[in-house]
Amino acid sequence: MSKLLVIGTVAFDAIETPFGKTPKILGGAGTYIGLSASNFKNVDTGLVSVVGEDFPQEYFDILHHKNIDTTGIEIVKDGKTFFWSGKYHDNMNKRDTLITELNVLEHFNPVVPEKYRDSEIVMLGNLHPLVQHAGLEQMLNKPKMVVLDTMDFWMDIALDDLKMLLKKVDVITINDEEAQQLSGEYSLVKAAAVIHELGPEYVVIKKGEHGALLFHKDNMFFAPALPLADVFDPTGAGDTFAGGFTGYLAQQDEITFEKIKNAVIWGSNLASFTVEEFGVKRIAEVSYEEVEERLEKFKELTKFSL
Amino acid sequence: MSKLLVIGTVAFDAIETPFGKTPKILGGAGTYIGLSASNFKNVDTGLVSVVGEDFPQEYFDILHHKNIDTTGIEIVKDGKTFFWSGKYHDNMNKRDTLITELNVLEHFNPVVPEKYRDSEIVMLGNLHPLVQHAGLEQMLNKPKMVVLDTMDFWMDIALDDLKMLLKKVDVITINDEEAQQLSGEYSLVKAAAVIHELGPEYVVIKKGEHGALLFHKDNMFFAPALPLADVFDPTGAGDTFAGGFTGYLAQQDEITFEKIKNAVIWGSNLASFTVEEFGVKRIAEVSYEEVEERLEKFKELTKFSL
Repeated sequence: MSKLLVIGTVAFDAIETPFGKTPKILGGAGTYIGLSASNFKNVDTGLVSVVGEDFPQEYFDILHHKNIDTTGIEIVKDGKTFFWSGKYHDNMNKRDTLITELNVLEHFNPVVPEKYRDSEIVMLGNLHPLVQHAGLEQMLNKPKMVVLDTMDFWMDIALDDLKMLLKKVDVITINDEEAQQLSGEYSLVKAAAVIHELGPEYVVIKKGEHGALLFHKDNMFFAPALPLADVFDPTGAGDTFAGGFTGYLAQQDEITFEKIKNAVIWGSNLASFTVEEFGVKRIAEVSYEEVEERLEKFKELTKFSL
Repeated sequence: MSKLLVIGTVAFDAIETPFGKTPKILGGAGTYIGLSASNFKNVDTGLVSVVGEDFPQEYFDILHHKNIDTTGIEIVKDGKTFFWSGKYHDNMNKRDTLITELNVLEHFNPVVPEKYRDSEIVMLGNLHPLVQHAGLEQMLNKPKMVVLDTMDFWMDIALDDLKMLLKKVDVITINDEEAQQLSGEYSLVKAAAVIHELGPEYVVIKKGEHGALLFHKDNMFFAPALPLADVFDPTGAGDTFAGGFTGYLAQQDEITFEKIKNAVIWGSNLASFTVEEFGVKRIAEVSYEEVEERLEKFKELTKFSL
């Protein structure tokens, strides 16, 4: 068993898309990352997060059912769990945030359980860069690979902190607009080159329904998103990608560019399930057979014989 | 030698992008398609179009230099060549048409030269569906493959004519928004299924910098666009794609789904050159070696070994 440490939010989400509306349901980057990574055998995933006393046991059960170690999830007495609500536009590519109640997240101070301080892979889910950094600092040795997800919000309000952290990161996963913002370059090829200089050896640019690009020095790799007949809810797709990406890598003895390409495909594969239902429903219940079958579709999708 | 018949505009373009502005230069769908297809040996391309007496000999020379047969280009005495002018937005994904002077195009009645009435492949460039149909009707036999490009404008003003024509077409190439408009479906998977029902056995959905999707019954194939450091002018990229697509197919004895996948890759490959310079400059001058070299990059871009 190799260990994957995930630091990320566990939250309540309320989501509205053109296909419907949910009440408060289980959400959070750490939740999606953990559930996605749980599809890999021989990976021991420890989740570090914070929730309030209002966080129900049945949600812990969902995580435990997938063998996710939750000893790193702090439960704040009398606290309320982080709550986010958003509404997607008709084309599902854009969303408006309706409500953000930080609650217990406001004073989140991650504590990595002893057991996970020597994890091979560290996945820093989208959080304030200083919180991500505080988690990373608790590692006993330099992990084999540190992967960071972030967003435009932190570039706006904590750019220096983010840049400090980027020096300690092997892989950054961001979307295309965020890559453009962080680099000041419109071309993603140029953006990746600038971001390389900030620290990460690998730059993964997520383009949602348009797939994901991986850059490593002069090498590029592209993984399409699987074209789907029905997309119900894009929430968590990027985090599911990150979970598939890191879960796959945690299984590998050696990490090479070829392995990282495979990790991008696995991330895309698992993300394609998440969007098929609201919330974590699909990714929490997908079977190993379904995941393997869809991997074949990914292979077929770009295979040609010139 | 197998024959490729191209029916499409030969025009003057004036283009403005964030990188600069051109005077009236050589443009037109038929021009890009022909120049792109000319990269394939053993393909005899005949171009059917119309220009005015103002169309300079040097532009004919560009076409002749690439062995494009222009006997099908009518020169209207005292006529003025079709002129289009457009300005791209900062992100190059959208453009505004500044000027459209139809001129000789207004009464274009395509006449396919005797020599090309038994062409194996027919490429109907973006024109009024009735003009495309008038050209297609002159074929002596059913061609091996008829490929149609069209745009939202014809869906707005000549939908019934377009639908009539689609019944006689093997492949349609349109962009994502046009596929959505034509089908009434947002999901491209569903849109392709609806468009299949209208006639074309193969549906190619062009997504610009996000690549191209090919649908054939239950099969899907995806070809990425090559991520480029500099995109100067997207004008003609879709037509260059169509020229590479049909030029490749004209070379083939038998047309199978595998060959059509390759044709999508070749279309993407050649289109990647067009956008690197204003107008036809790059596609008219690209060498066989450059094209072959870039094909290798396309192979590398999506190859993985899971």
